[in-house]
Amino acid sequence: MIDRICIIGVGLIGGSFVAGLKQTNQVKTVIGFSRQESHLRKAQEMGIIDEYSLDISQVLKQVQMVIIATPVNSFQAILEMIKPHIDESVIISDVGSTKGSVIQIAKLVFGQMPAKFIPAHPIAGKEKSGIEAVDAQLFNHKRVVLTPTESSDIQTIAILSGLWKELGAKVEIMTDKKHDDLLAMTSHLPHMLAYGLMDYLISNNPYACRYVAGGFKDFSRIASSDALMWRDICINNPKEIVKHIEGYQKTLEKISNLIKNNKAEALEQLFQEAKSARDNWFSS
Amino acid sequence: MIDRICIIGVGLIGGSFVAGLKQTNQVKTVIGFSRQESHLRKAQEMGIIDEYSLDISQVLKQVQMVIIATPVNSFQAILEMIKPHIDESVIISDVGSTKGSVIQIAKLVFGQMPAKFIPAHPIAGKEKSGIEAVDAQLFNHKRVVLTPTESSDIQTIAILSGLWKELGAKVEIMTDKKHDDLLAMTSHLPHMLAYGLMDYLISNNPYACRYVAGGFKDFSRIASSDALMWRDICINNPKEIVKHIEGYQKTLEKISNLIKNNKAEALEQLFQEAKSARDNWFSS
Repeated sequence: MIDRICIIGVGLIGGSFVAGLKQTNQVKTVIGFSRQESHLRKAQEMGIIDEYSLDISQVLKQVQMVIIATPVNSFQAILEMIKPHIDESVIISDVGSTKGSVIQIAKLVFGQMPAKFIPAHPIAGKEKSGIEAVDAQLFNHKRVVLTPTESSDIQTIAILSGLWKELGAKVEIMTDKKHDDLLAMTSHLPHMLAYGLMDYLISNNPYACRYVAGGFKDFSRIASSDALMWRDICINNPKEIVKHIEGYQKTLEKISNLIKNNKAEALEQLFQEAKSARDNWFSS
Repeated sequence: MIDRICIIGVGLIGGSFVAGLKQTNQVKTVIGFSRQESHLRKAQEMGIIDEYSLDISQVLKQVQMVIIATPVNSFQAILEMIKPHIDESVIISDVGSTKGSVIQIAKLVFGQMPAKFIPAHPIAGKEKSGIEAVDAQLFNHKRVVLTPTESSDIQTIAILSGLWKELGAKVEIMTDKKHDDLLAMTSHLPHMLAYGLMDYLISNNPYACRYVAGGFKDFSRIASSDALMWRDICINNPKEIVKHIEGYQKTLEKISNLIKNNKAEALEQLFQEAKSARDNWFSS
């Protein structure tokens, strides 16, 4: 059991992580830090954190682990803020959606990647957000990707991996590059497509919504995601996102050409294979 | 009250339409026709149709209205089949997803567009399909587009419009050209995007599904739509679908360029406007 963990940012993901750690008796005391005292008070009332302070030097006293659970764009300021108050023995991790940029920022702030800073990304639903949606079970059966670097401490990877596994998560280890490529394809690209479709529709016809059928509501749901968060993801993973937008455009061009050339059979085959894969992925 | 209506095809949309007509006492007798007797038997057992026959000349005897509720690709064969057995007094309508092609086929078969053939498209959810999913309330608060032509009989438009309105539908009249353009944008384009995304993912990485987050399941749901139906929609509305795929490609290029050029503010604005529109469309 870890004696003392500090959580910076008490939103859905960070809050759910420490709530899970407490529920599985993996931590004795969780101390919270945030710029918004109201969030910390709420988290304390809900039993998600035990203590909090607005003074970072107080918060970091005697902690064994710091979890950064704020938007990636705030990481540099946060790492600079915590750096004077921790030594090399403290484990650092995060829950950010992009990993290459996190490593880059850490190297910038610390001069090199600290051996006990293990970047992590739990791939869990984020439709709701904020402390009210916190769920200690959120990561059960969900995938969590750790992206250690060459200088990472093996034992620290094992400790962090163990914490997530106790919450029911499937932990996978890969390079930050592979993570950012994969997620650009499976998560960032779909969000760009959904935002892009809304942009296209409202630019063309302000009354387009009258003519959308049932499936559109589900299809467009991710376009209701937080705009600031997605701006930050784009800024932090530009190369991979652009690569996959461009790759996807080739697929659209292929479909467009099949339609133009009246290729009924090829269209049916493409639709059928897409349908089979999707049915297979979500058989439940 | 209409004495006798013939429904050709007893799937979700056709079945729900006649079930609604019966529930609102707008028709005395519904007689069904289909190539599959098992469907007709089931429909009769469920009380959706009163009678059926596999002999089209029997089915059409003394009917005042024929509703074609089969895939658009079967329309030519169906119109040729019914033509010898009906006179000009019989009202014809359909529930197909494309309207220009329906009018084109009708002109081909009848020499000109019959004055009492009023094409219709109820824009209603089609996630489930088949006779089992029939729901007499399916069109309540849903939009139904009628696309009469210059030669359409005004009184017939009023009769058909009245039937749909009694089911709670919002009836709108527009040209087939406008319908096919609008629906290519609001329905056909999103389906192409979803099928295209699945095609792109499985071509790139067969294990991509491991790294999709919560929102992906909803986003990709329409890629589980019937492949044959969507092949037919593409074949029947190629020009408009291609036009909107190409227009959408420009939007994707715009987003891609914003990301490439690190335009954080413009990205945030685009995402925020897309989100606001989507939240506004589906405020419930």
